[in-house]
Amino acid sequence: MSLKARVHVTLKNGVLDPQGEAIRQSLGALGFDGVEKVRQGKVIELLLDDGDPAAAKAKVEAMCEKLLANTVIENYAVEIG
Amino acid sequence: MSLKARVHVTLKNGVLDPQGEAIRQSLGALGFDGVEKVRQGKVIELLLDDGDPAAAKAKVEAMCEKLLANTVIENYAVEIG
Repeated sequence: MSLKARVHVTLKNGVLDPQGEAIRQSLGALGFDGVEKVRQGKVIELLLDDGDPAAAKAKVEAMCEKLLANTVIENYAVEIG
Repeated sequence: MSLKARVHVTLKNGVLDPQGEAIRQSLGALGFDGVEKVRQGKVIELLLDDGDPAAAKAKVEAMCEKLLANTVIENYAVEIG
């Protein structure tokens, strides 16, 4: 059985996000007013050969700690299914 | 009033994702078995100076069409709130 997992990796509060700021300025230049703040993060979708959602979640969290997120500056959130 | 919007931008099916493939190989090299497929996308969080969720959604979809997504190769999904 296969399980889908989705990981959101976002910058922690207080960490500068120049890419988000560039998007905000570009939106303003295109005429989109009222955009107060933009933050950009990553979403990683995994297809796992695993039948147990709880075990899969623990495994994906380990992946985040080791590779998918830089936990000094980034938060991650794992959704299974 | 401010509204939060979250946009997921993901590659369309059939579009090659070398970054996702690099993650899959790295996970294998770190000893994580059973990862069949990895796709990487973007998540963009916006804080909007707007009180009407329906109008905000339409506005963010226009932002996706014009700037946030490359609709030739990417899909987007907008969540408000």
